[in-house]
Amino acid sequence: MTKYVYSFDEGSADMKNLLGGKGSNLAEMTTIGLNVPSGYTVTTEACVEYLDEGELTQEMEKQMKKYMKKLEKEMDQEFGDPEDPLLVSVRSGAAVSMPGMMDTILNLGLNDETVEGLVEKTDERFAYDSYRRFINMFGEVVRGIPHRKFEEKMDEVKDKRNADKDVDLGAEGMKKVVEKYKELVDDIPSDPWEQLLEATKAVFESWDNDRAIRWRNIQGLPHDMGTAVNVQTMVYGNTGNNSGSGVAFTRNPSTGENEVYGEFLRNAQGEDVVAGIRTPLDISELREIWPDIYEELEEVCKILEDKYKDMQDLEFTVEDGELYILQTRTGKRTPNAAVKIAHDMCEEGIISKEVALLRVEGEQIEKILHKRIDPEAELEEMTQGINASPGAASGSVVFDTDEAERRGEDGEDIVLVRPETTPEDIHGLAASEGVLTSRGGMTSHAAVVARGMGKPCVAGAEEIDINLEEEYFEVNGKRIEKDDVITIDGTTGDVIEGEAPLIEPEFTEEFEKLLQWADDIRKMGVRANADTPEDTKQAIEFGAEGIGLCRTEHMFFEPERLEVMQELIISEEKEERQRALDKLMPMQKEDFKGLFEAIEGRPLIIRLLDPPLHEFAPTEEGRQKELAQKLDITKEEIEAKVERLEEENPMLGHRGCRLGITFPEIYRMQVRAILEAASEVKEEGQEVKPKIMVPLIGNVKELENVKEQVVKEVEEEIFETKEGVDYEVGTMIEIPRAAVTADKIAEEAEFFSFGTNDLTQMGLGFSRDDAGTFIPNYIDQGIFEEDPFQVLDQDGIGQFVEMATERGRSTKEDLSVGICGEHGGEPSSVKFCYKAGLDYVSCSPYRVPVARIAAAQVVIEEEMDVDEGVEGY
Amino acid sequence: MTKYVYSFDEGSADMKNLLGGKGSNLAEMTTIGLNVPSGYTVTTEACVEYLDEGELTQEMEKQMKKYMKKLEKEMDQEFGDPEDPLLVSVRSGAAVSMPGMMDTILNLGLNDETVEGLVEKTDERFAYDSYRRFINMFGEVVRGIPHRKFEEKMDEVKDKRNADKDVDLGAEGMKKVVEKYKELVDDIPSDPWEQLLEATKAVFESWDNDRAIRWRNIQGLPHDMGTAVNVQTMVYGNTGNNSGSGVAFTRNPSTGENEVYGEFLRNAQGEDVVAGIRTPLDISELREIWPDIYEELEEVCKILEDKYKDMQDLEFTVEDGELYILQTRTGKRTPNAAVKIAHDMCEEGIISKEVALLRVEGEQIEKILHKRIDPEAELEEMTQGINASPGAASGSVVFDTDEAERRGEDGEDIVLVRPETTPEDIHGLAASEGVLTSRGGMTSHAAVVARGMGKPCVAGAEEIDINLEEEYFEVNGKRIEKDDVITIDGTTGDVIEGEAPLIEPEFTEEFEKLLQWADDIRKMGVRANADTPEDTKQAIEFGAEGIGLCRTEHMFFEPERLEVMQELIISEEKEERQRALDKLMPMQKEDFKGLFEAIEGRPLIIRLLDPPLHEFAPTEEGRQKELAQKLDITKEEIEAKVERLEEENPMLGHRGCRLGITFPEIYRMQVRAILEAASEVKEEGQEVKPKIMVPLIGNVKELENVKEQVVKEVEEEIFETKEGVDYEVGTMIEIPRAAVTADKIAEEAEFFSFGTNDLTQMGLGFSRDDAGTFIPNYIDQGIFEEDPFQVLDQDGIGQFVEMATERGRSTKEDLSVGICGEHGGEPSSVKFCYKAGLDYVSCSPYRVPVARIAAAQVVIEEEMDVDEGVEGY
Repeated sequence: MTKYVYSFDEGSADMKNLLGGKGSNLAEMTTIGLNVPSGYTVTTEACVEYLDEGELTQEMEKQMKKYMKKLEKEMDQEFGDPEDPLLVSVRSGAAVSMPGMMDTILNLGLNDETVEGLVEKTDERFAYDSYRRFINMFGEVVRGIPHRKFEEKMDEVKDKRNADKDVDLGAEGMKKVVEKYKELVDDIPSDPWEQLLEATKAVFESWDNDRAIRWRNIQGLPHDMGTAVNVQTMVYGNTGNNSGSGVAFTRNPSTGENEVYGEFLRNAQGEDVVAGIRTPLDISELREIWPDIYEELEEVCKILEDKYKDMQDLEFTVEDGELYILQTRTGKRTPNAAVKIAHDMCEEGIISKEVALLRVEGEQIEKILHKRIDPEAELEEMTQGINASPGAASGSVVFDTDEAERRGEDGEDIVLVRPETTPEDIHGLAASEGVLTSRGGMTSHAAVVARGMGKPCVAGAEEIDINLEEEYFEVNGKRIEKDDVITIDGTTGDVIEGEAPLIEPEFTEEFEKLLQWADDIRKMGVRANADTPEDTKQAIEFGAEGIGLCRTEHMFFEPERLEVMQELIISEEKEERQRALDKLMPMQKEDFKGLFEAIEGRPLIIRLLDPPLHEFAPTEEGRQKELAQKLDITKEEIEAKVERLEEENPMLGHRGCRLGITFPEIYRMQVRAILEAASEVKEEGQEVKPKIMVPLIGNVKELENVKEQVVKEVEEEIFETKEGVDYEVGTMIEIPRAAVTADKIAEEAEFFSFGTNDLTQMGLGFSRDDAGTFIPNYIDQGIFEEDPFQVLDQDGIGQFVEMATERGRSTKEDLSVGICGEHGGEPSSVKFCYKAGLDYVSCSPYRVPVARIAAAQVVIEEEMDVDEGVEGY
Repeated sequence: MTKYVYSFDEGSADMKNLLGGKGSNLAEMTTIGLNVPSGYTVTTEACVEYLDEGELTQEMEKQMKKYMKKLEKEMDQEFGDPEDPLLVSVRSGAAVSMPGMMDTILNLGLNDETVEGLVEKTDERFAYDSYRRFINMFGEVVRGIPHRKFEEKMDEVKDKRNADKDVDLGAEGMKKVVEKYKELVDDIPSDPWEQLLEATKAVFESWDNDRAIRWRNIQGLPHDMGTAVNVQTMVYGNTGNNSGSGVAFTRNPSTGENEVYGEFLRNAQGEDVVAGIRTPLDISELREIWPDIYEELEEVCKILEDKYKDMQDLEFTVEDGELYILQTRTGKRTPNAAVKIAHDMCEEGIISKEVALLRVEGEQIEKILHKRIDPEAELEEMTQGINASPGAASGSVVFDTDEAERRGEDGEDIVLVRPETTPEDIHGLAASEGVLTSRGGMTSHAAVVARGMGKPCVAGAEEIDINLEEEYFEVNGKRIEKDDVITIDGTTGDVIEGEAPLIEPEFTEEFEKLLQWADDIRKMGVRANADTPEDTKQAIEFGAEGIGLCRTEHMFFEPERLEVMQELIISEEKEERQRALDKLMPMQKEDFKGLFEAIEGRPLIIRLLDPPLHEFAPTEEGRQKELAQKLDITKEEIEAKVERLEEENPMLGHRGCRLGITFPEIYRMQVRAILEAASEVKEEGQEVKPKIMVPLIGNVKELENVKEQVVKEVEEEIFETKEGVDYEVGTMIEIPRAAVTADKIAEEAEFFSFGTNDLTQMGLGFSRDDAGTFIPNYIDQGIFEEDPFQVLDQDGIGQFVEMATERGRSTKEDLSVGICGEHGGEPSSVKFCYKAGLDYVSCSPYRVPVARIAAAQVVIEEEMDVDEGVEGY
């Protein structure tokens, strides 16, 4: 026979899946001797069966009755006894806490008769106050009557009686409220047992309400776990001035300081603390009022931290001078507090370094490293776009790129707002605090450039309607003029009216310590994606051990170079192309010298030109005219050429090594710039480790071709006169065919780097720019648990990563394999990469610390076998 | 010691790789006793070594000298003997014959001294004529002097001597020509041995000339085989009226009739026959002139066919009444002759059915089934586009779609010429003989629709510049006005000025027989891709065993339906969408009923809507206005909606099952139409086998979703009132992720069908519409041997096919697996599919016979182990 019900003294903390988080904690606390009001838990298993069957089975009801009897005996009271009724609370409690689920019903067991018993035991006002609370909660939670309706009734009574607040209502007033509430919930059962059954079923059913389902989808949680129901004897914090309710954290959840923290309200029930009707006292004041209780509470905090080995968030009630602990759970905390608590607890000997590392989440770390909006601030959110480059920025709205540049360089904080940006906007972007676009996604020009520059970007905020001519934008009925101040949050995608208070990033000592511990433990390298010496220095500061991806094309987006690049792509004559390339070469060489110097002898992987030429094409009319004059052709010819460069599906078009094979002179220029730069920096006495990466290889013959026709030729030319350097040639693995033929490709490649952005696009057939039309729907429907462009699709794309690694190494045992797609800085993807055997991950500089922690966490998880349960985790 | 040289009596027909085709045939003929002028062959191995080393090794020269001595002895003449010089021909001969390679030098051994010996033996004119021919060939072939220069010199001499033709020049004239030619080739060695060495090296080097390399790339041949060199004693057909030269086929290469066929020229060398200076005699006339020679030739033909078991193309020379056979090779033949010869030889007992089937090439079969341009016709080719839909068509050029419809329906032959077509052009396309576009590729609208209709289409002829307003187009300096007649060849992509003579397709008895033999042997099914009852009937006639792919979207392109479809996609309201769908449902149902009736109980796989909605969007202004009025919105709103539907990379966008999941009402309408149609046709007493195919599945949960939310719901509704039918739900495997997770997908799918068009696009990252900018270059450079959209990339995409088949069957042992991409009708791909374990291939109706033959060939090749050599193959 399945056991559906456990009393609190039958369970323990490790029965979370069966008893839910709340239930298992109540059981644990009972077991370790804390003063917890007695009660029992109906299991998650009962919930799952109930949802399957559509009804409570006889066996469930039987067991529930049995445990109620047990509780009656223990409390020496009877459920429904008109003289001295046993009253209980009913609370939901899933293994993982979840918004949107039905929460709490208090004072269950009251009806028109039993309330009189309560009157006898306490007083009339208290009893009817309790009764009206019960009816209110039952009505809202079980019957789905909106909270507002109860407020209206309450207001009617208060108006009639000239009462300002609830507390101003006396016993008669409360009786009146009960009467009114009963009109609202006219079918409330008077039999307490019926009340309990209905409440239990309502909790079970709330598992499957829309909000809960959506939330589980977003969190990637399974839908078949169910929730438990906790039935607990009532205690009251509102029985007089010797009573009260409060919440306490065992440490400060905002700063992480090791001190009891919380709030307390005298003569009040717990819900009153949260509701904010009266201003609660700081918990430290308890020391003055009830020193014994405070001391006991401190003791409880210590016991709980000792037991759970983490900061706890607990609810307590003092009833007539007796302290009851109603609930405990691991407390939520700010990113900075998370770091400090993990660090301190380790230093205090409560947890090991390993557990400390497991305590910090990747998302939290990322927030520490960027400016962020003060979470306490009250904000006027106007709309949301795609969180394309993290961090927050405030500034005056400017629509014109040149104006943004001018004012930004004059020291003003500017947020550049454009429908989308093009390479011709880069100078304005560089001088702004952040950029907001109404079109484009994670790979749009604005997004890519902003990430490269470490500037916040909200892209594709489609609700925004921009009028460039009259310089304003409209969104959801609001109109924002030029010079109005807005705030954008590139971490969340929020667009906010006005200036929001921003918190500067901190790099605390504790954080440094944690990162060092991570470095000691992790076995996989962490490199950064960086295109400039500045980014490179930043990356090294954040702990990068090399550059895993330097995108050479970004160097062409600078205005001066872009012009030459445009000459290059418009020219039909090979000689003219060569002239343009001859102008670009020394610029690229200087770029590379700067990078070799900045990276100080660490590996530097440089990717040859990747995007389709069309991205560089001159689209602006003025520029087209200028170029026409310069190249001595007509503007129409330029337009025609630009049109010819357009493609139906540019992601699958003429780009990457395909360009290098059809126009070998472009790659030759780049390889020459790399090797000459490396040679010259070596001559300066600096070690150099140049690695040339060929993008978009799908066929080993492409790589052969580039090596033969480009690299070897250039090498021979250069090292005739310059000092030779050791260099490697490798490839991106970003095309599905490359993954399945990796054994062949490894014959020619000295290293692999997974370009999981493209691999995801091609492997799933999802265009990153277009998939926004259906990915949200796919996540809602549970087809993908997360956006595969943010979190690597391990079941699908992951197979390509594993396959290519294995096949590549079957040819070359010591092949270096890494990843340089966006996933390289996403914690779960970093962990996957380690398990797939990769040598390193590479990500944007700001995510390097995230990757360092994640890379350590996966080692810990594997070695400690976390699924089997780790002490304190 | 490697043996580099073989005399003709040392070799045989099976030494083709070492001796080349020509060399092994000469050896074989010598061995079976035919009268072949003596000689020897320098091997392909020597060629490969020469190309590696850059010079002839001493050992090679030693062996060449040894064999020349042997030849001198046999002929009782000496090489370079001024009295009676041994003269030889030098010919290249690779294992596979190849255009662009250096061919022949005759009369090698002549110089200013030996020519006098020849004068003594024959006469002065003959000797100097031979000498000038030698200088000419040596100059062209070894020194690379253009043929034109020799012609100029010859003309100078003729002019001076008032000679009309070469034959009018006497001995003195020829001497003069020799003199002039020697001025052109002023460094010709006089030492015959030097002549031979230079000629040999020139042959070897010609293996690597650009044209030969390009040709091998096109044919997918390896580059490391090398060519052999054949050195053979000269015989002369121009020693007088008792001599002559000719070519003969053992059967008629045009019709396949079993008769000796060929041409003959008296008192002439072989080259004169080919050069067409004099009109040759039909070989049958030989019977009158030289009955003995004719009889001997007939005998030789019989011997050769007996030996080679295939139709032979031979060269012969009669020198002073003695018949010499100079060369034999398998003869080229027209498609119809190929079929007849294979059939007849089998009936005659020369070859087995299996060998007969191996004799017919897929390409030939495809030509038999379409109108084609008479290969004898002299054509004015203007340009070439993409061969997008096979067959040839002639007609008046019309640019306006409505005009094309009107005139086409009036019975005029029209070729519709457009920059590109849209769904709004379908009615004009349907009334035309063929369509020519200047933009777009194999998957462009025009191409897809034309293939569906079985009409010729040349797409993306980019050199054509169309002026729609003034109704003309220009191409390579030509201007074609409206009403001018052109011919397009959709099999080759040629665009021809004027009306070319067309040959109607024939479906001979012999061909039927061959196809029946193929059906007896093949083990894999052959189905067709067809969207209409007409196509279905055609497909069954061609032997299709079911429909492997019915594209439902093509049904929406008909004008009346397109309008409703446009209402559907423009509507923002679900109700309006439903109204449009309610209008479409009965139309689709009627389509499907027609198909179920036409397919007569065979399986019918219907694919749910696949293309992005944008393809149906109204782009024409008039249509937009009309629609605006109908839907009571502004034209601007329509424009905005159309713009929103546009995608950056539509191939990777919102299409296929993604549409069916975000707009389930569309798929519901289609499934309802399919099941109702099936049920109604079943009620009429016709067996039905409906199979619903969901496109673009990448994740098993997508298929689950469509089955749950669409198929089951509809089934329950329909079969409440209508008779139930058995149906299956399966999926396309066309996304790389689907291939690697095929084991999971097979849990939900009852069948798989490989969509290798998309699988190639995504697996290689090649957009079919854009890859034209680099694929030709890739083929030139040998990166791909063939266009992967035409011939399945077996090494890459093939792995996905194998993997998915294997993984799918690991879940469902009896899973039905087929292919319905373009590759399903391409012979080498069909063979691959069989080896990968597929149950069937499905292709356009006209390729069904090709697939039937290929499916038989692969069984024969496997069972006979063709690589090991098959009697007669």
